Amino acid sequence: MSQAVDSISVPSPADFHVHLRQGEMSALVTPHVASGGMDLAYVMPNLAPPLTNAKQTVDYVHSLEKLAPGTEFCGTMYLCPELTPDEIRRAAKAHIAGVKSYPRGVTTNSDGGIENYEVYYPVFAAMEETNMVLNLHGEVPSDAEEGVCVLNAEPRFLGHLKKIHSQFPKLRIVLEHATTRAAVECVRSCGDTVACSITPHHLDLIVDDWAGKPINFCKPVAKYPDDRAALREVIREGHPRFFLGSDSAPHPLANKYPSTTSRGSADALVHDCGCAAGIYTQPILLPLCATLLESFGALDNLGKYVSENGRAFYQRPARPGREVVLRRAIGDESKVPSVYVHPSHAHKSEEDPTKLEVVPFYAGKQLAWVIA
Amino acid sequence: MSQAVDSISVPSPADFHVHLRQGEMSALVTPHVASGGMDLAYVMPNLAPPLTNAKQTVDYVHSLEKLAPGTEFCGTMYLCPELTPDEIRRAAKAHIAGVKSYPRGVTTNSDGGIENYEVYYPVFAAMEETNMVLNLHGEVPSDAEEGVCVLNAEPRFLGHLKKIHSQFPKLRIVLEHATTRAAVECVRSCGDTVACSITPHHLDLIVDDWAGKPINFCKPVAKYPDDRAALREVIREGHPRFFLGSDSAPHPLANKYPSTTSRGSADALVHDCGCAAGIYTQPILLPLCATLLESFGALDNLGKYVSENGRAFYQRPARPGREVVLRRAIGDESKVPSVYVHPSHAHKSEEDPTKLEVVPFYAGKQLAWVIA
Repeated sequence: MSQAVDSISVPSPADFHVHLRQGEMSALVTPHVASGGMDLAYVMPNLAPPLTNAKQTVDYVHSLEKLAPGTEFCGTMYLCPELTPDEIRRAAKAHIAGVKSYPRGVTTNSDGGIENYEVYYPVFAAMEETNMVLNLHGEVPSDAEEGVCVLNAEPRFLGHLKKIHSQFPKLRIVLEHATTRAAVECVRSCGDTVACSITPHHLDLIVDDWAGKPINFCKPVAKYPDDRAALREVIREGHPRFFLGSDSAPHPLANKYPSTTSRGSADALVHDCGCAAGIYTQPILLPLCATLLESFGALDNLGKYVSENGRAFYQRPARPGREVVLRRAIGDESKVPSVYVHPSHAHKSEEDPTKLEVVPFYAGKQLAWVIA
Repeated sequence: MSQAVDSISVPSPADFHVHLRQGEMSALVTPHVASGGMDLAYVMPNLAPPLTNAKQTVDYVHSLEKLAPGTEFCGTMYLCPELTPDEIRRAAKAHIAGVKSYPRGVTTNSDGGIENYEVYYPVFAAMEETNMVLNLHGEVPSDAEEGVCVLNAEPRFLGHLKKIHSQFPKLRIVLEHATTRAAVECVRSCGDTVACSITPHHLDLIVDDWAGKPINFCKPVAKYPDDRAALREVIREGHPRFFLGSDSAPHPLANKYPSTTSRGSADALVHDCGCAAGIYTQPILLPLCATLLESFGALDNLGKYVSENGRAFYQRPARPGREVVLRRAIGDESKVPSVYVHPSHAHKSEEDPTKLEVVPFYAGKQLAWVIA
């Protein structure tokens, strides 16, 4: 990365945790990988139904490539009982990069998530053998009887990470979207095969920011100021095993901000009273990362965070000639739109609950940087 | 309290922390004190503008008495620089019961809240002398630099409580709507002049229940399972200094669930993206308390929680002949409405954002008890 006062060049930025959905939503958001400054997207498999074999994943990646021909997509599969060691070997031959594990019920489309890792040891052995990456959503399911809630679900998961790492020391593992000091310290203490993705929004938010504010609500939830400080510290340090995975997760505005209009009645609204969990950063990702890292004194490490560290861990070298240059924003040019609307829905009225539009993180706010 | 298997009689139930608002909202919710089973309402002063002198408070109480002639209302004043020792003496003569302190910015209409208690020592001395009660919203303002957020704001406040108590040992103080084990233990450790109100919703909710669910979002936020366990334990124990203050806090549905319809545009929605903090329990209060206490084995203490303990601390004996009898609900009769609508707004469409309707806690759910 070369850096001048008013411009930064990043080699082939890569986002190692992306949700690109299906259907019209996929058509809307997949081109935003490139417009947000990313050259590579590591794509999550929690579709409906989830991607549980190599063929589904390859087909999905092809569908994404049609939507955004210039972008490099890495596909993943969903860890579940159907995923056998043989399927892992087929997937490796098909250049599928990793397998994602979701604990049951902790986030969007995770109802088929796992509860016990030991039954997957044969799968992990095949992954280690074929050099695939295990991506862990690092939370245990909430259980009030056991004292588990969304605030301590991540620290309570870390024992699983350590155990899998000790059983499979050569298996590359990524603890996804870490949100706590405990998780950062745990990954630091592991060997070089364990890394950690950190989202830009968790570098920015604490619990107060999502309390009653659907735009900032995601899973894992943002936590204490000291947890955010730990995430910032490890990025400021440039630790090689910590890097960008945006966990950019689009939801229709009508699901993010449910109302009597979108739900049809007050009865329906209060019966199904949840605001969708997920923060959408894809179309503003690189300028957002630069803006945030600069705010806590880590701009020098932008290249490590958004490209070098993740690419080294994933063994995905930067594509030549794919530098992205950022320059300082002037005036209003970096103001984030309040919504992104699917073109074929643009004619629909703001009050039409079927209108496909997604509210991004930082909607209406200014970023300090723009893509040149 | 006499208790049979299927019926419970409670003497003159009293709610020692109520928000009854102004204007049309007040007209809608004030009669709900009685329909929710309460004979007395201790009314908070955080109106717009707040009630900062005796005359305003007396006038407000009169306005409530007109709306609900059978209910006993206790007025309070808002602690602020305008409140002098002389005004305290005037208020005591006018039978005003207490003074409420809000830290700046922590909840609805608290922008004029206080930051330093020592400047109020002359006021506290006058309150001690005139036997008035000090009601403390027990949170310090969030301050990320200092590590303070909505999750630890209450424990960090407890030093203020202890200091005021040690300076004014005869001043009766209520720590309002406690949400943490630390707060319960702190009040236990204080002398008999310090008590604590506990809301029914904090006996029911943990953080997971309000994450992305506006209906359950309030301040102070519900916290860890272990905190909820501490609140339940002290009610199950029947500790004499812990009692009901519902903190029932109505907000228009359009503020609780903001949408593009109510805000006018996606721009306005995401710019002002907050869901109002407050849970509305007034119209279902006594059956809700019975239902919750029974769920954790404390039904025997219902009378202490909703009447005896609070009345003893506040020196407000039960009015004779004001027993309320609960019986077990049969079929659908205890199903909580999804909204309460102001009668003069009943004709408005569900999509009209000016329609004054309030979504209650437990909307659409069944309670185990009804008022006979």
